[in-house]
Amino acid sequence: MYLTQSLHRCLQQSPHATATVCGDRTVTYADTYHRVAALAGGLRELGVASGDRVAILALNSDGYLQTILAVAWADAVIVPVNTRWSIKEIAYSLVEADVRVLVVDDAFSALVPSLSELCPNLSSIVHAGDGAAPGGMLSYETLIATSTPVPDAHRSGDSLAGIFYTGGTTGFPKGVMLSHRNLFVSATGCAAIGTWTTGGTVLHAAPMFHLADLASVIAHLMLGGTHVMIPAFNPIATLRAIADHAVTDALLVPTMIQMAVDHPRRSDFDLSSLRTIVYGASPASEALLSRARDAFPAARFIQAYGMTELSPVATLLLDEDHDHPVRRRSAGRAAPHALVKIVDPDGDEVPLGEFGEIVVSGDHVMLGYWKKPNETAAAIRDGWMHTGDGGTMDSDGYVFVADRIKDMIISGGENVYSIEVENVIAKHPAVAQCAVIGVPDEQWGERVHAVVILAPGATLTLEELREHSKREIAGYKVPRSLAIVDGLPMSGAGKILKRELRKVFA
Amino acid sequence: MYLTQSLHRCLQQSPHATATVCGDRTVTYADTYHRVAALAGGLRELGVASGDRVAILALNSDGYLQTILAVAWADAVIVPVNTRWSIKEIAYSLVEADVRVLVVDDAFSALVPSLSELCPNLSSIVHAGDGAAPGGMLSYETLIATSTPVPDAHRSGDSLAGIFYTGGTTGFPKGVMLSHRNLFVSATGCAAIGTWTTGGTVLHAAPMFHLADLASVIAHLMLGGTHVMIPAFNPIATLRAIADHAVTDALLVPTMIQMAVDHPRRSDFDLSSLRTIVYGASPASEALLSRARDAFPAARFIQAYGMTELSPVATLLLDEDHDHPVRRRSAGRAAPHALVKIVDPDGDEVPLGEFGEIVVSGDHVMLGYWKKPNETAAAIRDGWMHTGDGGTMDSDGYVFVADRIKDMIISGGENVYSIEVENVIAKHPAVAQCAVIGVPDEQWGERVHAVVILAPGATLTLEELREHSKREIAGYKVPRSLAIVDGLPMSGAGKILKRELRKVFA
Repeated sequence: MYLTQSLHRCLQQSPHATATVCGDRTVTYADTYHRVAALAGGLRELGVASGDRVAILALNSDGYLQTILAVAWADAVIVPVNTRWSIKEIAYSLVEADVRVLVVDDAFSALVPSLSELCPNLSSIVHAGDGAAPGGMLSYETLIATSTPVPDAHRSGDSLAGIFYTGGTTGFPKGVMLSHRNLFVSATGCAAIGTWTTGGTVLHAAPMFHLADLASVIAHLMLGGTHVMIPAFNPIATLRAIADHAVTDALLVPTMIQMAVDHPRRSDFDLSSLRTIVYGASPASEALLSRARDAFPAARFIQAYGMTELSPVATLLLDEDHDHPVRRRSAGRAAPHALVKIVDPDGDEVPLGEFGEIVVSGDHVMLGYWKKPNETAAAIRDGWMHTGDGGTMDSDGYVFVADRIKDMIISGGENVYSIEVENVIAKHPAVAQCAVIGVPDEQWGERVHAVVILAPGATLTLEELREHSKREIAGYKVPRSLAIVDGLPMSGAGKILKRELRKVFA
Repeated sequence: MYLTQSLHRCLQQSPHATATVCGDRTVTYADTYHRVAALAGGLRELGVASGDRVAILALNSDGYLQTILAVAWADAVIVPVNTRWSIKEIAYSLVEADVRVLVVDDAFSALVPSLSELCPNLSSIVHAGDGAAPGGMLSYETLIATSTPVPDAHRSGDSLAGIFYTGGTTGFPKGVMLSHRNLFVSATGCAAIGTWTTGGTVLHAAPMFHLADLASVIAHLMLGGTHVMIPAFNPIATLRAIADHAVTDALLVPTMIQMAVDHPRRSDFDLSSLRTIVYGASPASEALLSRARDAFPAARFIQAYGMTELSPVATLLLDEDHDHPVRRRSAGRAAPHALVKIVDPDGDEVPLGEFGEIVVSGDHVMLGYWKKPNETAAAIRDGWMHTGDGGTMDSDGYVFVADRIKDMIISGGENVYSIEVENVIAKHPAVAQCAVIGVPDEQWGERVHAVVILAPGATLTLEELREHSKREIAGYKVPRSLAIVDGLPMSGAGKILKRELRKVFA
């Protein structure tokens, strides 16, 4: 179990099949193989030694996939950089991981002079973009064309594959060290339960630096599929890519699904090829799921819950679970490769249904945090990764993540679950996306507050919203106030940050 | 990745689901869990320490599955004994593996006095059979009822799970040491490509001591399925079990498929539930496959090639490959978890299509041979398991095992491929099973000789067979002699031993 293993199989079994589609460019598996072997040789010639770190700061592309494989081939360690970070955060991670070589594309090459200054150990910058490389950078294509291929290092599965920096919202980012085995175990565990299409075509619209999408890269390399990349998510490019390339599988977050599904030109595209949508970051509302099932008639919806430290999947909510009134609010059940339990502060399992911390074990638990032995010891105790997420488990093993089920408003002494109100609001034709929070209220303690992004051209008043809601839910659950916004605060992984909303509307 | 891991998941996700069906007895996952924990406690009370070997000599049963799990739970090592071996071979393996505790059922308890004499280190014999335990043996049920459950050892995936003795036809048997990870990697790799039905019902008709069937035990524990056991293969019991329990998946060898498919009472049973038949040991003839597709209309056929040392799967021939005129004679392509190549005696890969030794690498390659470091070093070189099988690979990665494609007769200077002639003979209504070999002939060098098992009540003359064959194949390929037999010599794994046939008819 080493990342390049799948590339050897693809070369052996389907050398002339299309490995990647990126804009107008298609590359076969044979060509991908030879490019990776040459790029690995190029990295060696740049002085990259076994275990050295190579970072990539780029939008999605075929070169992104090639770089990940070439770094493994050269026995080096990939550091995929979060493209949404500030230059300060990026520099912090490059310095902390002691990165020697950085691959950038045109979208980020303007940052190179500053990064070079902030990261004195960076010895080479490789420009994977169009046209000539800017001054001081090496051309990615020239490196491949002029380097002598080297043999695949193909080390043990225990060796370090990558350092994946997480968060950054609180304190300094932490580098999650994942082995080749870690990444394979999560990918094969998800595949074993039928998540992905064997020999399918997968769309990379979510950012490839994020492990959610990277997991689908690894799974589809293993299953001999074709990878279609668009530089970054936008609804039209996503719809067009699905239709043009008969995409079968995609990893998306609910916000992306919503934007694609609600796009006015959606019906211009034939979306009948899509068989699997894996989504993460947050549950999909009932209303969104219903619209998405209409838009993608052949697609099964699978929710994955996990975190970078779990490579990344711990639980899966299968398609049929979405039709269950209670389970659909859960994060699903332990995937075949994972053990999941809910524990008290002493690490003892709590009785079924009681609240505790979600902990996970298995061969997909990270090696540790880069250069942070104390944080590692705090996170992994007795072999169990402590997720920091609170939750409960029901008698069929469904895990309810507390950030979701405890997202509760107490208004006039009554408990109001945001998800229930959001499901109702989302059904209103004027609503593209919404979030419901509790805001302090003199009379009610908290009042139910709706934050709404309108559908294109639509309007909505509080009275209309209340009329609509009253038909479906009790009066005390109906929003007492409404804010129309252009966007909702999102985490890097596409999750609505309700804490931020609460700050704004407090 | 530890064998008991799946049992924890099954308890968490479907405690009240049926884990095993054995005769009239059904056991839930909750009960299986508690029995395993108690049996592990019982083994500890019998003095079984970490790493000690516990053997089982029994026909298929729910207790077989429980014993395998309990041994892992107790941090011990399972030694499944080949039920077809002579007492001398059995004693050899029990002594070599230094087995302390032996579990036997009623079918083998008569061997216990002799085995106890031959194996002085055997300290306890557990009788997993009906009624009271014979003198000197402990009752399996009493052991479970009176022992205190212990916590699951749940060690690292690298730890030794079992010692699986192979062969015995040449020299002394060798004990193949497989880790928990070895076994899981092969099972998940096969599952990733969609081999097994998630949450399905699997029939154990092939012997559970053999890794082929044991691999399906491990896969279906991972996928939360129900296990239906029959003590040993017979066609009626197999057909009845499929119909009675709506079996979805089964591991069978071609001989078993043939006996079930050609059974005169076959049409009495509803076999429409069967979705997957994994078969191994030898390719299925075109004629057999065609009859089997009629008998099992909903089933996909998947051929697995491998060996115990590979835990056990290296390549898979998928259902659709069976319709391809050339590929159907192959053993398929490298499974997702395996790398396969064809090498020359120096270990260098040979050009495509050229003959060499089939070698395999991956996390499913055995830890080594028990107490045989020299044999281990000879078998695993540079991380590649040398299978000892010769073969070729085509440009799409299909592996042709030489024992199959080189099973060629040279008659009058013409090359005759046995498989082609066998396919023709198998279509004759009087033929239940057949093998074609070359036998020495003064006039032709070798002549094509057919060995046939007749269908019940049928007769066949050489002239009838020649008439039938001439309609489909060239005259030089038509059998010149015929032997009607009651049975064909089979390897323990169900493969027709043509070498034995050649000796008989030389």
